[in-house]
Amino acid sequence: MRRTPFTSRVEALGCRVFSVYNHMLLPEVFRGDEADYHHLKTHVQVWDVGCERQVELKGPDAARLAQLMTCRDISKCRIGQCLYVPLVDERGGMINDPILIKLAEDRFWLSIADSDVLLWAKGLAAGLKLDVTCTEPSVWPLAVQGPKAEDLCAKVLGESVRAIRFFHFAEMEWQGHRFIVARSGWSKQGGFEIYVNDWDLGGALWDELMAQGKPFSVGPGAPHNTERIEGGLLSYGNDFTNANNPFEIGLEKYVHLGRPIEFLGRAALERISAKGIERRMMGLFIDAQSLPACDSPWLVWNGPTKAGELTSCSISPMFGKGLGYAMLERGAWEEGTRLTLETPDGARYAATVTPLPFWRPER
Amino acid sequence: MRRTPFTSRVEALGCRVFSVYNHMLLPEVFRGDEADYHHLKTHVQVWDVGCERQVELKGPDAARLAQLMTCRDISKCRIGQCLYVPLVDERGGMINDPILIKLAEDRFWLSIADSDVLLWAKGLAAGLKLDVTCTEPSVWPLAVQGPKAEDLCAKVLGESVRAIRFFHFAEMEWQGHRFIVARSGWSKQGGFEIYVNDWDLGGALWDELMAQGKPFSVGPGAPHNTERIEGGLLSYGNDFTNANNPFEIGLEKYVHLGRPIEFLGRAALERISAKGIERRMMGLFIDAQSLPACDSPWLVWNGPTKAGELTSCSISPMFGKGLGYAMLERGAWEEGTRLTLETPDGARYAATVTPLPFWRPER
Repeated sequence: MRRTPFTSRVEALGCRVFSVYNHMLLPEVFRGDEADYHHLKTHVQVWDVGCERQVELKGPDAARLAQLMTCRDISKCRIGQCLYVPLVDERGGMINDPILIKLAEDRFWLSIADSDVLLWAKGLAAGLKLDVTCTEPSVWPLAVQGPKAEDLCAKVLGESVRAIRFFHFAEMEWQGHRFIVARSGWSKQGGFEIYVNDWDLGGALWDELMAQGKPFSVGPGAPHNTERIEGGLLSYGNDFTNANNPFEIGLEKYVHLGRPIEFLGRAALERISAKGIERRMMGLFIDAQSLPACDSPWLVWNGPTKAGELTSCSISPMFGKGLGYAMLERGAWEEGTRLTLETPDGARYAATVTPLPFWRPER
Repeated sequence: MRRTPFTSRVEALGCRVFSVYNHMLLPEVFRGDEADYHHLKTHVQVWDVGCERQVELKGPDAARLAQLMTCRDISKCRIGQCLYVPLVDERGGMINDPILIKLAEDRFWLSIADSDVLLWAKGLAAGLKLDVTCTEPSVWPLAVQGPKAEDLCAKVLGESVRAIRFFHFAEMEWQGHRFIVARSGWSKQGGFEIYVNDWDLGGALWDELMAQGKPFSVGPGAPHNTERIEGGLLSYGNDFTNANNPFEIGLEKYVHLGRPIEFLGRAALERISAKGIERRMMGLFIDAQSLPACDSPWLVWNGPTKAGELTSCSISPMFGKGLGYAMLERGAWEEGTRLTLETPDGARYAATVTPLPFWRPER
């Protein structure tokens, strides 16, 4: 359970709850669940997401290996661009859903969710005898998220951050050191991820963001379950696992079977595409003003028939009711279907099927 | 962060601290650190180690894949046997240190420490186009550890558990269901690991062990940092990482370069063996009656020279002083060398180098 360059800062600022993600501490709660939510949507937060580990692929076969790992065509990806890439195994099962960052023609980072993608990359590279080095570099992302994130980053890193387009990155200099800064992040409030590659400077950068951010009501924060559900962000290990394929979780637009690319899951995804899927992740509006935590899946009933599982839920202040993600079987996934949720303790809630995402920001 | 079949039981029994291991909850403290230690060494504890995930290799190439992953010769391993197998990558770096369980000539489990070995196995199998299926079966180990573990298991599972030899397993029947039961576990107090493969029966088995164990003063427990350091057990991710090779961490007896086996790290380990290592894990006796938690490595000084890092430590009631593991550079690893430890907060402790393990049980 590794610390990040920012752990001492979040401890000092009263982080109440930590999770563990990629064998590393992930702060979760500062002011309380609802206060953190409103702060994120109103001001700007600095997040210790050092646990968002990078898998670096470097060498003549780096692009080939990256493509083998994902069903999304990366051949047109330019240096400076970030791509959301579903990683799929030879059975078409999801391995992770990282951001691919193209640093050079022969150098990529995969900014990963919670599974050891490095081991999969190393296994493939060794098995295929590829000329590529797969490592976990000493990089700990720091996210600046919220409607005032651009103003804060412009003040600290320079006005040119404003020119960074969504899902693109630039190298920015701070204190004589160059950091990769991307317009991205695991919220829908806008902002940046700073790929901190110097442990000591990381703490100093955190302090500077806090100091310069006072006029913007900056504070520490963390990825927020309610906000991410509202915006349709999926969580690997919770909403989907290796047992799911990308079609089941609404990622069909990233499955590029029509392009001449070679990837590990091609044959399996072609079979699944031809046959069709038997379950699909959908949104649920839940008739509730409060909900218990969903720390293991809840049963979903369609009348007397089991219709699937709820994997995440939260009460949304934005919608004034509960929102949830559910993996639903064919026959239960049509928009407007009325379903019943059953918690492990036997509590029941009525819910209505709706497409995802619940809400999408204007860009 | 997944629950196990036993999570509700350990919550009800007052588990105070959880860790996260293989994306799953691992209970850590029940009575308090020192009371848990003495209870484990005196009576019998039932441990929720459901997080000790299994990687199943099954198919015609299962044995070949298992051998490719480890530097230990597994060709003589018999069905019913368990082997401690260092997994090493093509650079000779450690990937994990699981127990290999041979279930059949074409079926193995790797009972893993905290890293996604499944992804490495899948990558290798896919890259080499091996005829093997790599999965994470629905198996959650339950450990029964302590000097009275055999009596308790004999009472609940039947007298024939007494015949199971160390690092061997047998199939035992309980409630009409067959479980694999091995004489093993992450303590040096003796005991068994029950490979529970039925979620609901798992809870019932926990309850039965607790009920039948009253005469043995049974209680819940967990792997204990002090006890495992006394006994020389290493923790992947803490005491060693992928940056270490097996020679550096005292596993040379499991590096079978002289046997005609094919494994991924052979060339790298041959080079390292010929050249010799530059750092080595050693034990330290620490002159202290209390120590802060070692939650990130401490510096080790040999006079004015940096000599390595301390990765784990604890005050041992058995030795009446501090014990620690340190990765020491050549020149500092000789038995009897006096060193100085420096915590991240700047506290200093004197220490003396000693071979590992500190203590070995009689068998």
